[in-house]
Amino acid sequence: MRWVLPDHIQDALPSEARQLETLRRRLLDAFRVRGYQLVMPPLLEYLDSLTTGAGQDLTLRTFKLIDQLSGRSMGVRADMTPQVTRIDAHLLNRQGVSRLCYCGSVLHTLPSTLTATREPLQLGAELYGHAGIEADVEILRLLAEVLRLAEVPASRIYIGHVGLFRVLAARVGLVPEQEQELFALLQAKDVAALRTVLADVAEPVRSALLALPGLYGGAEVLDRAAACFPQDAEIDALLGELRKLAGSLADLPINFDLSDLRGYNYHSGIVFAAYGAESPAALALGGRYDRVGEAFGRARPATGFSLDLRELVWRLPSPAPSAGSVLAPYSDSTDLATEVAALRARGEIVVSALPGHENTWNEAGCDRQLVRRGDRWAIVPLQGE
Amino acid sequence: MRWVLPDHIQDALPSEARQLETLRRRLLDAFRVRGYQLVMPPLLEYLDSLTTGAGQDLTLRTFKLIDQLSGRSMGVRADMTPQVTRIDAHLLNRQGVSRLCYCGSVLHTLPSTLTATREPLQLGAELYGHAGIEADVEILRLLAEVLRLAEVPASRIYIGHVGLFRVLAARVGLVPEQEQELFALLQAKDVAALRTVLADVAEPVRSALLALPGLYGGAEVLDRAAACFPQDAEIDALLGELRKLAGSLADLPINFDLSDLRGYNYHSGIVFAAYGAESPAALALGGRYDRVGEAFGRARPATGFSLDLRELVWRLPSPAPSAGSVLAPYSDSTDLATEVAALRARGEIVVSALPGHENTWNEAGCDRQLVRRGDRWAIVPLQGE
Repeated sequence: MRWVLPDHIQDALPSEARQLETLRRRLLDAFRVRGYQLVMPPLLEYLDSLTTGAGQDLTLRTFKLIDQLSGRSMGVRADMTPQVTRIDAHLLNRQGVSRLCYCGSVLHTLPSTLTATREPLQLGAELYGHAGIEADVEILRLLAEVLRLAEVPASRIYIGHVGLFRVLAARVGLVPEQEQELFALLQAKDVAALRTVLADVAEPVRSALLALPGLYGGAEVLDRAAACFPQDAEIDALLGELRKLAGSLADLPINFDLSDLRGYNYHSGIVFAAYGAESPAALALGGRYDRVGEAFGRARPATGFSLDLRELVWRLPSPAPSAGSVLAPYSDSTDLATEVAALRARGEIVVSALPGHENTWNEAGCDRQLVRRGDRWAIVPLQGE
Repeated sequence: MRWVLPDHIQDALPSEARQLETLRRRLLDAFRVRGYQLVMPPLLEYLDSLTTGAGQDLTLRTFKLIDQLSGRSMGVRADMTPQVTRIDAHLLNRQGVSRLCYCGSVLHTLPSTLTATREPLQLGAELYGHAGIEADVEILRLLAEVLRLAEVPASRIYIGHVGLFRVLAARVGLVPEQEQELFALLQAKDVAALRTVLADVAEPVRSALLALPGLYGGAEVLDRAAACFPQDAEIDALLGELRKLAGSLADLPINFDLSDLRGYNYHSGIVFAAYGAESPAALALGGRYDRVGEAFGRARPATGFSLDLRELVWRLPSPAPSAGSVLAPYSDSTDLATEVAALRARGEIVVSALPGHENTWNEAGCDRQLVRRGDRWAIVPLQGE
């Protein structure tokens, strides 16, 4: 059957496509008036450019192709964030802050969950050039605003900090592979395996790492962390950042999860995930990734978030049936053409009849029709269907 | 250098991305009020679904991938029209007319010309379910309107008819490979090679085929064609369709080119190409392709056009420098937040300053700033940059 799509690949038919387009415009407009400039990186790049600095996970998710022009390996983007970082680092080359946004399809070789699409419509905003917590505050506020505009408000935003883990891991003195393993166990909150792996690690770092999976909840988590982490100026500074964040965003449903280290391994500081009311899957992910730009010749502070617009739309209620379209008779009358143009300019959908399709216009979405009344055109309910 | 893109692949930086987004919205809105419903088929499909009925040319242009889930061959779409035909035939399953539109990226293994992108942003409209010339008239008018809205009006629209060629080729009794060769020679207007290939073909078909490459120009071409084509009821009917088209579209810059058989081999009737004033390359292509739906289980009459939004934007003059953005001081004052929200609601771009980036805001696009004047906020020219 030639019309069957691959698993985890979908068409968006008119009703869903309309919701996607409406939401796309609303969110890009919200970015625009806040100074986030739209960029459109390509679907296709050389593989090393797409996956540099972004970890093995992204590389495995990326579809690979051979470039017939150069013979080099290319990939179809699986994540637009590194592309936008490339644009900031190399093409815009600004000295100050740059705020960028984007919306486009990405492809994944395998779905990230049992229900996920392999073609997310990724929409996101990134803020480059400012290392201070003020940028993270702005990005988190923007994320909350975007979800509010999408009518899928965040019921919880969980914040973690990759830096806390990195400081602790550095004190253990792990090689990168070991750090990666530890990272995976923390992500899985697999405390039993953690105990085994950390058996020979000295206190107080051992206890601190073992405590991480339990350090989630409200702002009191930061006090509990301070109590069980080793005395360390760097750790104090990182916890101080998180406290500042909690204070600045007191009106948002902020929570902390200090073992949440999600992302494509490229994050370097604060990371976060926003959840809606009714689903265990995150609606949006983001965080700080100050080091990714290095690969493009220019490390710049960077923070941002992205989400899958399809996921948002799938969570919206079905749209209320909108007013139907107006059927215009098939005619080359110029006063009809004038009337139709005026209706369309007011945003009405006016469908021109074509000869010989009687009784099919309701199916095409029409519920009213233009009929001649004396010397003018009137809109009346669609007759005889 | 990790920031170099493959040849014929481009980023759209803020200025161009803004133009693309503006034009995308304007054209999709024009489709919408005419009853063309937006659909969003996927980037990725099984290869046989993407290339069915569409000819060898499209297959060669399509990037192939292996589906890790099914082991089957997939392709990244190189043309959205067959996808939209699949949606009409199988998913919408309407009895009457359906009007659909789309806008999305497609990928080509090789560029179609020396200057073409391998990632066109394809935008198009398709009308299914009506076999009569009225549908072609509507689509040609819509195309002209779209180019007018894009501010790249069509200076010439060349119309051909694949049916004329097919009738003549059928009278020669060619096998498909020979028909394909003849088709290619006609496309290239290679009269010398045509003479050789047609040496043994009987008159009057031989002369008619040899005349095709010269049959281009205004509506008088149809009279010249009638004079040199064999007497044939089918040919008369096809020329009659073209005459009717010319009559209905007398206000458009319609021309005929009876050897223009372009397209991905899937066209079955009228075909057309619109040209702007200043370039030899077509701005938009379209035509009738009544047989493509067969592969999806349901042949429906079909006509439509598509164009590359990037090509349109590249032909636009650089946008006039728009009003700059307004810089808001870094502050958590609530009356500032109110003022900023009001400005943004009016469509002003208001950029929040972040601490410590003095003298970089002009670079970020600001030319004005919000300053406190007594108990209110005023907009003044950006100072000291």
